[in-house]
Amino acid sequence: MNILIVNPNTTRSMTSTVEAAARSVASASTEITALTSKFGPVSIEGYFDEAFSVPGLIAAMKDVDHYDAAIIACFDDTGLDAARCHTESPVIGIGEAAFHMASLIAGQFSVVTTLRRSVPAIKHNLTKYGLSSRCSGVRASEIAVLDLERPGSDAQARISEEIEQAIHHDRAEAIVLGCAGMADFAEALSHKHGIPVLMIFTVVR
Amino acid sequence: MNILIVNPNTTRSMTSTVEAAARSVASASTEITALTSKFGPVSIEGYFDEAFSVPGLIAAMKDVDHYDAAIIACFDDTGLDAARCHTESPVIGIGEAAFHMASLIAGQFSVVTTLRRSVPAIKHNLTKYGLSSRCSGVRASEIAVLDLERPGSDAQARISEEIEQAIHHDRAEAIVLGCAGMADFAEALSHKHGIPVLMIFTVVR
Amino acid sequence: MNILIVNPNTTRSMTSTVEAAARSVASASTEITALTSKFGPVSIEGYFDEAFSVPGLIAAMKDVDHYDAAIIACFDDTGLDAARCHTESPVIGIGEAAFHMASLIAGQFSVVTTLRRSVPAIKHNLTKYGLSSRCSGVRASEIAVLDLERPGSDAQARISEEIEQAIHHDRAEAIVLGCAGMADFAEALSHKHGIPVLMIFTVVR
Amino acid sequence: MNILIVNPNTTRSMTSTVEAAARSVASASTEITALTSKFGPVSIEGYFDEAFSVPGLIAAMKDVDHYDAAIIACFDDTGLDAARCHTESPVIGIGEAAFHMASLIAGQFSVVTTLRRSVPAIKHNLTKYGLSSRCSGVRASEIAVLDLERPGSDAQARISEEIEQAIHHDRAEAIVLGCAGMADFAEALSHKHGIPVLMIFTVVR
Amino acid sequence: MNILIVNPNTTRSMTSTVEAAARSVASASTEITALTSKFGPVSIEGYFDEAFSVPGLIAAMKDVDHYDAAIIACFDDTGLDAARCHTESPVIGIGEAAFHMASLIAGQFSVVTTLRRSVPAIKHNLTKYGLSSRCSGVRASEIAVLDLERPGSDAQARISEEIEQAIHHDRAEAIVLGCAGMADFAEALSHKHGIPVLMIFTVVR
Amino acid sequence: MNILIVNPNTTRSMTSTVEAAARSVASASTEITALTSKFGPVSIEGYFDEAFSVPGLIAAMKDVDHYDAAIIACFDDTGLDAARCHTESPVIGIGEAAFHMASLIAGQFSVVTTLRRSVPAIKHNLTKYGLSSRCSGVRASEIAVLDLERPGSDAQARISEEIEQAIHHDRAEAIVLGCAGMADFAEALSHKHGIPVLMIFTVVR
Repeated sequence: MNILIVNPNTTRSMTSTVEAAARSVASASTEITALTSKFGPVSIEGYFDEAFSVPGLIAAMKDVDHYDAAIIACFDDTGLDAARCHTESPVIGIGEAAFHMASLIAGQFSVVTTLRRSVPAIKHNLTKYGLSSRCSGVRASEIAVLDLERPGSDAQARISEEIEQAIHHDRAEAIVLGCAGMADFAEALSHKHGIPVLMIFTVVR
Repeated sequence: MNILIVNPNTTRSMTSTVEAAARSVASASTEITALTSKFGPVSIEGYFDEAFSVPGLIAAMKDVDHYDAAIIACFDDTGLDAARCHTESPVIGIGEAAFHMASLIAGQFSVVTTLRRSVPAIKHNLTKYGLSSRCSGVRASEIAVLDLERPGSDAQARISEEIEQAIHHDRAEAIVLGCAGMADFAEALSHKHGIPVLMIFTVVR
Repeated sequence: MNILIVNPNTTRSMTSTVEAAARSVASASTEITALTSKFGPVSIEGYFDEAFSVPGLIAAMKDVDHYDAAIIACFDDTGLDAARCHTESPVIGIGEAAFHMASLIAGQFSVVTTLRRSVPAIKHNLTKYGLSSRCSGVRASEIAVLDLERPGSDAQARISEEIEQAIHHDRAEAIVLGCAGMADFAEALSHKHGIPVLMIFTVVR
Repeated sequence: MNILIVNPNTTRSMTSTVEAAARSVASASTEITALTSKFGPVSIEGYFDEAFSVPGLIAAMKDVDHYDAAIIACFDDTGLDAARCHTESPVIGIGEAAFHMASLIAGQFSVVTTLRRSVPAIKHNLTKYGLSSRCSGVRASEIAVLDLERPGSDAQARISEEIEQAIHHDRAEAIVLGCAGMADFAEALSHKHGIPVLMIFTVVR
Repeated sequence: MNILIVNPNTTRSMTSTVEAAARSVASASTEITALTSKFGPVSIEGYFDEAFSVPGLIAAMKDVDHYDAAIIACFDDTGLDAARCHTESPVIGIGEAAFHMASLIAGQFSVVTTLRRSVPAIKHNLTKYGLSSRCSGVRASEIAVLDLERPGSDAQARISEEIEQAIHHDRAEAIVLGCAGMADFAEALSHKHGIPVLMIFTVVR
Repeated sequence: MNILIVNPNTTRSMTSTVEAAARSVASASTEITALTSKFGPVSIEGYFDEAFSVPGLIAAMKDVDHYDAAIIACFDDTGLDAARCHTESPVIGIGEAAFHMASLIAGQFSVVTTLRRSVPAIKHNLTKYGLSSRCSGVRASEIAVLDLERPGSDAQARISEEIEQAIHHDRAEAIVLGCAGMADFAEALSHKHGIPVLMIFTVVR
């Protein structure tokens, strides 16, 4: 199988993080191609950034029909509806996929994302997908997307605090990490908190 | 009061139709400026067109802060969330406004729009706004946006047929016309069918 | 345009407050007539008062057909369904209208009303109108309607405290004042809290 | 036990029908007192009649505290909220009670009522009570309340036709008769259609 | 009338508690037969116990057709759907019946049950019955079913604490006791807290 | 990866159909073990059969902890909650998984199942999972489970007719086959109708 992953922001290091996470869970026979959008915002936080990254996303998907499926590597599922109008191949958003996966392993899950301004778009997606009744809360860690990668950042610690709150206040049985840039925190946080902490590129144990 | 209307597609004749409709209901002291997007799709039918018209819409709104409010003249409320991130002024979508107005004058209303491919986006907006319980149906007349203006088009007759169905099958008490290009049909159809047929630029009698 | 406002309680000073608020936002060409119900409760707080004020309301609306539209100046939308059966003219409740207006300018809004016993009727209206998903909370300030006008009352301070709670706990982006008698607090509270605090007779800036 | 039944319209023959139905299902030790409202509409069809019958209803309930419970014998549950504010005794509406009873014996039920103009109030009550997901349809037989008692009326036949539709189109597993005046049709219709046809004063077999 | 009560767990003392409670509210002419399941779990706390008690429940109901109705005396309504497939007689679950009864006497009610692991099944039932909008909270007292009967247990005190929370935090207007084994606490708790505390075998005053 | 599939009915030929379907989509490195329940109903159609197959299902899962995950091969997700209480390993129901998968590739999907008596359980599951808003209809083909395998059966033709209805009346964009025994019809029906027809053991193209 041949999968195209497109990062709709223009930050290549984030594409690399996602690509590595995807490879680590793919079976041997799956080929993964990861592309970065060539124009548009460097990170996507809220509706404004989303709107401006769709044309770059669609441009990056120009050869999508050569693949068995495409994955949009932005937790807001930026441009998902537009991309689906652009190709007959299945297109999956990582937010949408994570919500469905969490629903299969937990009665209710909470989301921990970056900035508060991303929360309405995530809640709105949950309603659209039909899964808001499964979500026990959407929490902001107040870390900007690009700070997730900054050396010396306390990002993981702050995300961990929100997970703690989600377990005790929301009674969450699983956590969905609400940003593609958090892909490499999942395993450690899952281990630390004793419940599944997931993105679609993580193995749930 | 000073209102900016932006047509997010690039078809100037549609801007003129909307502008005339707006002036006909505005009070004497209200100034209306109507602008047309300079790049992007010539009409907006479904998610793909929507995505590609937002950058042109935002560009056309560059002086929005000089106005008391802005109106996006596309029934899909294209770019509404992004535009609201762009300015402190109130921004209103004509779809959203029409749904709220219809809710004030009718127990339930049906929508008659252009092509079937626009239906999911409209239904999704109704859910997002909280008003799907007020909507008794979203019907497609299967007339393309640009055919609404074509001389000799049977557009009005086909819309009228769908209104008939909406009244008898959906038990609609009001009709919302689901495309800015239908603005000048509202009065005649309202008269013909004996229930309010409205857009936000029509006087409901 | 010719608008009839009816206060369904028998307290004339409250009619005057509402009338002044309405005139301050109406355009020059709009004529406003404000009438007070001649029999029934002096204030409307909960279902019992509501039921007993409808006959007086309908009596006060006996000439409603001479007007372009009527407004029922009670936040509970007392008698709205009955009034709509009584006339072909549009009849608008100030509660209903405020909920729709707040939905156009905010992702979610909270309501601050008078006594706790009014809360169920307001929540029930939100459900009926389809807008409960847009409302982040209905809060009681525990001030009786008639105390809103009492000289030396701390009404505004207590309403302000609830607004503070609504902003921080509910994450409200706008506040709807839940009693016609609060009409003249809106502007000051909006200024103080930095988010729109509204009734239908206020200009949102 | 000592139960007060109040008919909120002024038609005594309807009170008698309801009283007989109630006695036929009450246990030997239950005393039933049935009163008729002394002023207000002769029948209640829609919101306008409802509003004008509440004062008469409350007047008729002046001794409600001498009873163990009160029943409002109007399917619209006219004045139920107001009556509950008036007394500490339990007050039950026959519409509400029938919806709950039907939910205990059927996966989904349909309602067959009198005129179309009563439908919105019934649907609205179902939403308020939380039971709309249990209701497969609200159907109007287009028989006025007072025609239910008219000798030679084809009322039962027309109700029967709607029950037939409800079984085949709505897949209703039980029928709720939507008017107190239909109390004495329940047994025959239940027998004829082979599914429970009920009001709260009928024995479901 | 002839009613069969079946306790789907194998603990006879619990059947006796329920039987006594049922008799205390039944009219003189009602005969009550209470049976205990002969095989399966000794108490039912969560989905696993539920699944294993259904065969014993159905076996205990082998003569159900000799009765006018059957009651399943487990708050989770264990095996209710299966029992309804087994007989034409009405079968009522005590959880379901209590939710409907509470809805008739209170705008919103909270449930106080035994262990946290029973909460999801109760919430799920509320959704299925359509009544989640009427429920203001499901609270666990963290007392195991069999400890309810243990001499010297502080069960009633801990349930009382949760009722206190439900009144103040959930704004519950009535409490539903979420385990058949709590049947004999209802009257005292209702008296203590001043709001109805109920199961279907209690008289609400 | 090591996956356990358990058929909760006792019909071995159905286990073989499911096992073959599963192997055809599994990657080379995935080991599949398929077991048949040793006691309980021969097929599962509705709530009664479900209840009696759970003990056999749990017995068949006695070694579940040796596997990476378990799949319950019954479209009703029989015993899913109980099985999840029985093990720490992920347990997936094929109904639940198919609903989530269909949601990822279609705006709305319809289900085509066997007998009408299975419909309520399927609708109830959709509500529980949160996905009823994604489902455009649950249709019965009126073919009993065991007739699916009978030589000369017109099962596929009758399912195909319902798919036709689902496409035209429900506007379904994908079809979920509502019985494990239909596993080998998926590819042909998908090809014939031109939209995805799926179970979790089919490759969607």
